[in-house]
Amino acid sequence: MPTATTAPELHPDRLLPPDPAERAIARRLYQRVRDLPILSPHGHVDPDLLLHDQPFTDPAGLLVTPDHYVTRLLHADGVGLDELGVGAGALSEGAARRAWRQVCEHWSVFRGTPVRYWLEAELVEIFGVTDRPSAATADRMFDRIAERLAEPSFRPRALFERFRIQVLATTDDPCSDLASHAALDADPAWQGRVIPTFRPDRYLEPSRPGWPAAVRRLGAAAETDTGDYDGYLRALEARRRYFAEHGATSTDHAHVDARSEPLAPAEARRIYRSALAGDATPAEATAFRRHMLSEMARMACDDGLVMTLHCGVRRDHHPATAERYGPDVGADIPVRAELTDALRPLLSRYGTHPGFHLVVFTVDETVWSRELAPLAGFYPSVYVGVPWWFLDAPDAIRRFREAVTETVGFGRTSGFVDDTRAFCSIPARHDMSRRLDAGYLARLVADHRLGEDEAAEIATDLVEAQPARVFKL
Amino acid sequence: MPTATTAPELHPDRLLPPDPAERAIARRLYQRVRDLPILSPHGHVDPDLLLHDQPFTDPAGLLVTPDHYVTRLLHADGVGLDELGVGAGALSEGAARRAWRQVCEHWSVFRGTPVRYWLEAELVEIFGVTDRPSAATADRMFDRIAERLAEPSFRPRALFERFRIQVLATTDDPCSDLASHAALDADPAWQGRVIPTFRPDRYLEPSRPGWPAAVRRLGAAAETDTGDYDGYLRALEARRRYFAEHGATSTDHAHVDARSEPLAPAEARRIYRSALAGDATPAEATAFRRHMLSEMARMACDDGLVMTLHCGVRRDHHPATAERYGPDVGADIPVRAELTDALRPLLSRYGTHPGFHLVVFTVDETVWSRELAPLAGFYPSVYVGVPWWFLDAPDAIRRFREAVTETVGFGRTSGFVDDTRAFCSIPARHDMSRRLDAGYLARLVADHRLGEDEAAEIATDLVEAQPARVFKL
Amino acid sequence: MPTATTAPELHPDRLLPPDPAERAIARRLYQRVRDLPILSPHGHVDPDLLLHDQPFTDPAGLLVTPDHYVTRLLHADGVGLDELGVGAGALSEGAARRAWRQVCEHWSVFRGTPVRYWLEAELVEIFGVTDRPSAATADRMFDRIAERLAEPSFRPRALFERFRIQVLATTDDPCSDLASHAALDADPAWQGRVIPTFRPDRYLEPSRPGWPAAVRRLGAAAETDTGDYDGYLRALEARRRYFAEHGATSTDHAHVDARSEPLAPAEARRIYRSALAGDATPAEATAFRRHMLSEMARMACDDGLVMTLHCGVRRDHHPATAERYGPDVGADIPVRAELTDALRPLLSRYGTHPGFHLVVFTVDETVWSRELAPLAGFYPSVYVGVPWWFLDAPDAIRRFREAVTETVGFGRTSGFVDDTRAFCSIPARHDMSRRLDAGYLARLVADHRLGEDEAAEIATDLVEAQPARVFKL
Repeated sequence: MPTATTAPELHPDRLLPPDPAERAIARRLYQRVRDLPILSPHGHVDPDLLLHDQPFTDPAGLLVTPDHYVTRLLHADGVGLDELGVGAGALSEGAARRAWRQVCEHWSVFRGTPVRYWLEAELVEIFGVTDRPSAATADRMFDRIAERLAEPSFRPRALFERFRIQVLATTDDPCSDLASHAALDADPAWQGRVIPTFRPDRYLEPSRPGWPAAVRRLGAAAETDTGDYDGYLRALEARRRYFAEHGATSTDHAHVDARSEPLAPAEARRIYRSALAGDATPAEATAFRRHMLSEMARMACDDGLVMTLHCGVRRDHHPATAERYGPDVGADIPVRAELTDALRPLLSRYGTHPGFHLVVFTVDETVWSRELAPLAGFYPSVYVGVPWWFLDAPDAIRRFREAVTETVGFGRTSGFVDDTRAFCSIPARHDMSRRLDAGYLARLVADHRLGEDEAAEIATDLVEAQPARVFKL
Repeated sequence: MPTATTAPELHPDRLLPPDPAERAIARRLYQRVRDLPILSPHGHVDPDLLLHDQPFTDPAGLLVTPDHYVTRLLHADGVGLDELGVGAGALSEGAARRAWRQVCEHWSVFRGTPVRYWLEAELVEIFGVTDRPSAATADRMFDRIAERLAEPSFRPRALFERFRIQVLATTDDPCSDLASHAALDADPAWQGRVIPTFRPDRYLEPSRPGWPAAVRRLGAAAETDTGDYDGYLRALEARRRYFAEHGATSTDHAHVDARSEPLAPAEARRIYRSALAGDATPAEATAFRRHMLSEMARMACDDGLVMTLHCGVRRDHHPATAERYGPDVGADIPVRAELTDALRPLLSRYGTHPGFHLVVFTVDETVWSRELAPLAGFYPSVYVGVPWWFLDAPDAIRRFREAVTETVGFGRTSGFVDDTRAFCSIPARHDMSRRLDAGYLARLVADHRLGEDEAAEIATDLVEAQPARVFKL
Repeated sequence: MPTATTAPELHPDRLLPPDPAERAIARRLYQRVRDLPILSPHGHVDPDLLLHDQPFTDPAGLLVTPDHYVTRLLHADGVGLDELGVGAGALSEGAARRAWRQVCEHWSVFRGTPVRYWLEAELVEIFGVTDRPSAATADRMFDRIAERLAEPSFRPRALFERFRIQVLATTDDPCSDLASHAALDADPAWQGRVIPTFRPDRYLEPSRPGWPAAVRRLGAAAETDTGDYDGYLRALEARRRYFAEHGATSTDHAHVDARSEPLAPAEARRIYRSALAGDATPAEATAFRRHMLSEMARMACDDGLVMTLHCGVRRDHHPATAERYGPDVGADIPVRAELTDALRPLLSRYGTHPGFHLVVFTVDETVWSRELAPLAGFYPSVYVGVPWWFLDAPDAIRRFREAVTETVGFGRTSGFVDDTRAFCSIPARHDMSRRLDAGYLARLVADHRLGEDEAAEIATDLVEAQPARVFKL
């Protein structure tokens, strides 16, 4: 499709409901939350970005190459991942410029997607660029953004402040010494709050290549012998404590399913031994992984870390792409989710434990009304995670509120989570969420299900109190 | 979340579409049905309530403790079920007052849910209470409602008349002698119609604890020896006849799945014998249950009772809660449903039998467009049950009409079914449905898919003719 | 339900959004595409209709008896399929008139369905009939339509031209000599483009009755010995080439699931031999069918034919109906679909092959956002088929755009496909799609996600460039 020529425009009413009565209410609600600080309790920004505060190198390396939301749609449109610099490490200026040109030339593929919405917001609001991306404007845009990136006010720390980020959670390997976080904390020139998140998947799945070596590293990090199952548990507990002591408030878990059947201790010990020796069957490895999900809940009851669950994605769907370009390049595809039976063993044990929090995210929207909201509407520990990944987009977010609110209201949902590695997209993502929640609430006011005073309280809570409470910030 | 202070308001346009053109049409459609009598062909009100016509004891015992829609959300918000009097039998005034206070203090948890909508309608329309529930208003509200409940015009029979209920179906054990129904019928001071419903689940599932004793009781009730399978079938047939003779027009069936594969008679007899002896395997018990679903359809073809099916709920998801508080306290969670293959054996045999009616309800909304509407769009016996349980709420009801109408129109749907044990919520629930159907029809008129004269006919039919026809009232 | 009396009205704004701001935008977008020619890249019209250009016999034979969308809803409402002439071959005038009367008397069952929308559009726009169908108007309408059908301007070729059909694809048996297509091409009086589609299901499923005879016929058609597996593959390749040489641009595949695991060649050869001998087990027959789906993709990479997939329907759900009336009479019911794992073997091999196109249609709308859009948002070969069958209706089409656009935009969708055997419904179906896409795009413009210039480009592309590109027309 050829590209039309209108310049990007950030209309003040964007994403608000078109009906005039609803829009008027939505505007008032949005005004209340528009400028509130950002709590980002789960995401994938590298803490070194803020520690070293180096200028971003170029527009492609900042906005294109590392963002699989962008690269996947270009790939589908026939652009090779190598033309986008994926998997190539740092890009030369020529390569960066070529990658940027691909985005601009294929700008029309993003129409109707949130990628377009976020990128446009970033271009206009952060970089003051009002050209519409196209073959004709690509180089000029590249140059203007590159110029800006060289200015001190476009360094990561300056942007962090400009974005009004109050808390930013990173995602970290359990073996990490969290030195970057510690150095940030110790830096008198730095006032922000950047906290780690404990993400142990690779240590919990014996079926992953290199698992025996991974648990040995874990043992080293914990100064604990992981040669047997009990040492392995102690090492995990120790690393969780270490993370908590360094500011972490949550752990994150991503497996293909959410099943959580516990094993008898003797059986867990036996499988652990087999797995260390490389002898566990796939079924045993899976059973162990599900058992460990329950163990993570048990540990969460003890140490108070919030447990978040992101399940239901078939990673690296296209093996040749994974082999050539590695993971996280846009070839992950969701599968059907099941939560009611999967989480029952875990919730039977820990679901009513005081202080236990389990935030569940899904890429299968059918579980919202059928399973996830009903679970969060009974168990005091369960919170409904807001839309994630493929579903983190305006129409899907509306469907989300319509699917869960009638069963759980607002107080059992997580508050917005950006879950992004695209640092510059953070304000646009949170702003999008605030606009959409304002629109959904406006509808409830307009058809007289809610008073506007109540809606205003909810809109504010969803941005301020709710994520702080759910993630124990 | 703190509670805002607006007083409850029952706006005349509540739940009607905000768009002015649609709203104007919806208003006209709603006016036609607003005051029509209520047909309630399936629900859980106790007939003794109307037989004895005793005053309701207190607001908590009436509106809170027995209603798992209310208690589940409070439980999720951290209120113990014992603080709500669940499972405690009749409450002292102090306990009732404390339970009521919990509701009022946590009023904000209901925002955006139908519980809030129904309770608010009940408070304003039935009790004339216009305070917004809160810690400050709890005691005053308790007192005012309690005062009202002591007045003669707030006794069950007076409310039944005030609610304009034309038919009320209860749900009854097959062994019940239906004495309450008979006494009501025989009472010259009583003009209402209260009919029983045959609900045989516990006699059809050999895996339930106490099943051998249950079928012995069934035999006693039917004066038939249920020591063998043939006697068991005769006993079920006899009790169905007994119910039909006492006014029942339907039977109700709730199993975790809808599968209906018949067994060869010899195999059914063999499993029945094993099950009576306590020797049936879980697989045999399940096979027998599925067989009996088909047998119920066969009997329905013979005796004309309408068959309703409510499947797909994992009961008592949290064992510790079930053990302490019993069933039906809010810990039931839906699972995925499957109807196309599950019902095929049953429908292959009985799906085109003249006069056979099968009304299917689901808590898995994905089957609406995929399976249930297509089935009802071919089989003359199948009707699409309106949204049930977690889905009996404004946005879900809209999704329902949008999911099924294009495949089956309106005439293959059941008409509204409140399915409630909360007597005072009946008018609010039916009114909600009337408003939402008016809104959906207004949309079809507004975008010129339907004439307004046709929409008016449909709106009326859905309230009057349709439930009478589907449930053979 | 009784029938209201308003005459059919084709409002110029029908199906456009009721909100005035959105409607104004939608009108402008719709105006741009309203009169564009029709590309129909997949459907079931008989090419002999256009070759012989005989007058249609009567209204029932044209609009009722062969259209299972019409007959299924009447059947559900209690009209026997024999009363509609289903399975009875050519109808006498009396039988045709009686069938037509059934439609008119039961006209209200179609309210809210697309059947009503299409039939009304056909009656008014093609036949100039403005009566509302009813018992009172049935005979008069029958006579008026019959009169028109006798006029030269109502012959198939005249209608084809009037409908502005630019390309019409038929669906054909691989053994067909495509003589009708060739004769049409050779006819100097005929300017239209009617192209065949290769539909090999029956030759790929050894479990179907008569499969050994079918593959022998295939061998005869290809002048190749299909006595062994390698000859069978050569025969399929030859027939695909033959179709491509006769204008086909696509092949169509409909199986109950989309699984595509390849077999080792030796295993494929072994099962083929067993199946020819009638000895293959059901599991082997299924494995062979899944293997052959991958083989079809392989051949598509070689010969460039676009592969379309329509899966997830349980055919002939009611065996007694199938036995008496045959297939395609309205008793087909969807089942749950799964694509992520099912298509992975096929896409791992061929998903990034240059020029390979795989267009996937579903009757399970849950896969739209969860699986199908994510697949099409990564693989350059995968296109999201527009709503099909039960889902080819206004509300479902809106849900479709809302479910897929945020993940894949517009350029990864197929463009409209009518997939119909009801020749006269083709313009109404395409017009409906154009209206709905205009409405969806208007919403994106109204809430400032898209410029109106871009929306106009998209609206046009979806009608012109997109189907031509996806189906290689």
